[in-house]
Amino acid sequence: MKEYKEKVHETLTTYKNEGINLLKRLVNERSVQNHEESVQAIVIEYLRSLGLQIDVWEPDINELKAHPAFVSTRETFKGSPNVVGLLRGSGGGRSLILNGHIDVVPEGDIAWWDSNPYEAVVKDGKVYGRGATDMKGGNVSMLLALKVMKELKVSLKGDVIFQSVIEEESGGAGTLSCILRGYKADGALIPEPTNMKIFPSQQGSAWFRIKVKGRSAHGGTRYEGVSAIEKAQKVLHHLNMLEKIRNEEITSPLYKNVPIPIPINVGKMSGGSWPSSVPDEVVLEGRLGIGPHESIHEAKKMVETSLLTLSEEDEWFALHPAEVSWFGAHWLPSEVEETHPLIKCLTDAYSLTYNEEPTVEASPWGTDGGLLTNCAKTPAIIFGPGVTEVAHFPNEYIEIESVFEAAEIIALTMLDWCGVKE
Amino acid sequence: MKEYKEKVHETLTTYKNEGINLLKRLVNERSVQNHEESVQAIVIEYLRSLGLQIDVWEPDINELKAHPAFVSTRETFKGSPNVVGLLRGSGGGRSLILNGHIDVVPEGDIAWWDSNPYEAVVKDGKVYGRGATDMKGGNVSMLLALKVMKELKVSLKGDVIFQSVIEEESGGAGTLSCILRGYKADGALIPEPTNMKIFPSQQGSAWFRIKVKGRSAHGGTRYEGVSAIEKAQKVLHHLNMLEKIRNEEITSPLYKNVPIPIPINVGKMSGGSWPSSVPDEVVLEGRLGIGPHESIHEAKKMVETSLLTLSEEDEWFALHPAEVSWFGAHWLPSEVEETHPLIKCLTDAYSLTYNEEPTVEASPWGTDGGLLTNCAKTPAIIFGPGVTEVAHFPNEYIEIESVFEAAEIIALTMLDWCGVKE
Repeated sequence: MKEYKEKVHETLTTYKNEGINLLKRLVNERSVQNHEESVQAIVIEYLRSLGLQIDVWEPDINELKAHPAFVSTRETFKGSPNVVGLLRGSGGGRSLILNGHIDVVPEGDIAWWDSNPYEAVVKDGKVYGRGATDMKGGNVSMLLALKVMKELKVSLKGDVIFQSVIEEESGGAGTLSCILRGYKADGALIPEPTNMKIFPSQQGSAWFRIKVKGRSAHGGTRYEGVSAIEKAQKVLHHLNMLEKIRNEEITSPLYKNVPIPIPINVGKMSGGSWPSSVPDEVVLEGRLGIGPHESIHEAKKMVETSLLTLSEEDEWFALHPAEVSWFGAHWLPSEVEETHPLIKCLTDAYSLTYNEEPTVEASPWGTDGGLLTNCAKTPAIIFGPGVTEVAHFPNEYIEIESVFEAAEIIALTMLDWCGVKE
Repeated sequence: MKEYKEKVHETLTTYKNEGINLLKRLVNERSVQNHEESVQAIVIEYLRSLGLQIDVWEPDINELKAHPAFVSTRETFKGSPNVVGLLRGSGGGRSLILNGHIDVVPEGDIAWWDSNPYEAVVKDGKVYGRGATDMKGGNVSMLLALKVMKELKVSLKGDVIFQSVIEEESGGAGTLSCILRGYKADGALIPEPTNMKIFPSQQGSAWFRIKVKGRSAHGGTRYEGVSAIEKAQKVLHHLNMLEKIRNEEITSPLYKNVPIPIPINVGKMSGGSWPSSVPDEVVLEGRLGIGPHESIHEAKKMVETSLLTLSEEDEWFALHPAEVSWFGAHWLPSEVEETHPLIKCLTDAYSLTYNEEPTVEASPWGTDGGLLTNCAKTPAIIFGPGVTEVAHFPNEYIEIESVFEAAEIIALTMLDWCGVKE
């Protein structure tokens, strides 16, 4: 691999502008759920320029619905294609899936953004815009790594399967559809924003909805009613305690630098219908982090059982229990052994580029790696440019340098893992 | 007055069915804001049968807007008439306004109702339906009292001005329009559901909206963000403390049986947009109870100033203060001296009917009495059938007996207050 280091680096330097422009074009497309077609067109165009064999299809909702890991709020994926580009190997090498999602989360309150989230701005060595970090930057790193293969005219032994998938932010239907289409490999790399850390295991997650009951009354005699907002505060407090208990159980050294390895996040809260009435219902919606060692089922059960104990501190909950349901998306947790040879390749490539050892940690969030590892028997490692801290944030950005460094490391890993035909 | 007691009682007994049917007809009209025309038609028909001089008009939004006490979310009152019926006195007596609102609050979640809220049901001596207690029952008591005057062929010395007004539930634009049209009197009676208690002073109220800021982040690294829901809990706790402080200041014996004389009710809460994001804003909406001794301005100022001190316990609020605004409706507080002669008339009438002394208390909510007392110099007393506990509730009802007892007391009060020409 060492012999390629300089050549890979030099080639990437030549394509600086091309890489930045590609990233800007991807960011400029508002590829939130159900609006992925135009951004995939750009990906297709680029894969075509690399000479890859291209596979484009709209996931089949009926086929997906039959799979136990499927989740989506959608009833059709019409207009939302997956894109795969295949770099066929000469044979005898290990195959590699390069997987990246092309969908982004909504921009949120536009007032918090310094500029239009869908007009990428280059400033101080960064590209700003929704999706720059999560994860169009990582997608560009992979595409640049593929570009390098073409420019260096190397012939890899193993296949490289590049996947630009939809729906990751809503539960992974895009990657699941790739799996159902038959795509699998000896290993997978997903350049989600790990800030160049290597994540062999990842947190799963599931979305919950909790209904908290009250009893309505006129606000002027609010003591005649029971405020669902007040009761919801007890539920929130309880969830905080539960989060504490769940995280005390996590002792893996992969989490030693993570303040809350598997958080319980309440993302939405709404209740009441009239300012001068006592609110009779509050709905909380949130995300339960699930440890790599847990099953989704076990983790959900723990929340359900725990909330039942609310009646011990407040008898209101005995008659009106907080009702939990699970909806929308979930992401499977997963664990790849630290001794897996793909981690060795990645670590070596990292050390060649940075002259230091990488950090190996657990991911604070779920990715499509859970599906690849569990449902496609394709051990997936998460490693990419960009920092979690700005993902899903206003003024999301990515350091341009990191996109190219990740491209270099991915290219070197590809060469090592797939093998080069002399 | 004593000499009329039996005659009034007997006459009312004769009109039992007529009274119940009238109440049912009023309840059957869904007279929520902007839908008051058909119910007013029934009132007009009844006033006509009593031979009263009738005044019907749609309040003039431009005239109202010029008045400092005006509040409404509406831009026109087209199709929403006020109705006044005048029983002209022979002269030399005190005049009396009988004021009742004909609008009702929305029915809320229909699933909580045992039957259609707008198909009045008579059961176990009660009439069920939206508005039965608040306050179509009280309106029927007044109309029956007027009926008695006609049937007994008494000639009152003072004028009686019966007002069937719109918009009380949204801030009193209907009564304010009566005032601007020139209606005033030596005293006013409003039969809101006091459960036959006499309320000489009343709580005012104002609606607030509080915006609480957070900072968004991915739920999997929620420690990178600041949850607006968590910060809102501090605001809620602060409002609770403020409510406690404000209520400790209330020492009037009129409040001795009221658990929270001037509550702060948070009726709505909503925030966040995505289950797996840290919410960056929460909006609270509620009702501030205002003491009879306070001005609306003073009370608002107290809330605004108090919320500023949140920064002392959490520096987040120093940079991101909770933003208070006031919207929608407000109701003026008001106070009529306990020695006012109308209270004496009412107390005497009550004692004649029930053979016991009435309870004199402060009202736990605002009524149009605030406008009459403050803006029309017409001291308004609140006294009526029905119980607050079911107002604004599903399965709202009123005890039929109480409607007729209130009619009797109102009739006797009218005779005493206005005087009878021999």
